[in-house]
Amino acid sequence: MKAKIHITLKNGVLDPQGKAVQTALAGLGFTGVNDVRQGKFIELELTETDRAKAEAQVDDMCKKLLANTVIENYAIEIVEG
Amino acid sequence: MKAKIHITLKNGVLDPQGKAVQTALAGLGFTGVNDVRQGKFIELELTETDRAKAEAQVDDMCKKLLANTVIENYAIEIVEG
Repeated sequence: MKAKIHITLKNGVLDPQGKAVQTALAGLGFTGVNDVRQGKFIELELTETDRAKAEAQVDDMCKKLLANTVIENYAIEIVEG
Repeated sequence: MKAKIHITLKNGVLDPQGKAVQTALAGLGFTGVNDVRQGKFIELELTETDRAKAEAQVDDMCKKLLANTVIENYAIEIVEG
């Protein structure tokens, strides 16, 4: 099974990386950009074949390693195959 | 309009960051992980209200700044509101 994980900064948490991208875009002439938020996108290839178990496992991984739950949200999507 | 951009490494390009995550997961006891690929997820808030123009603009941003098209693929999703 495959898992796709989106890790994004919570609302209200400053995103200096996003701000830097916004400034760089403005410098290139892209002025119609009001906000930029940069997050992470992680794809996992799992040996687990049970969807519910896979999801529970990935949730555990996010809490323990992948996401900093103090400042980040995560969303998990399990894909067959 | 909002744009969601996924930037992922092309197949065949080594992903040392993903490998590091995989090793760290194994160290925590998550052994059923065959592969980890880490990409970027960028959310843009645009002033442009025309969907086609917004998409063209974001495509341009990806080519010029956000993605390194030699080693990375990108996918753009335009969302209303």
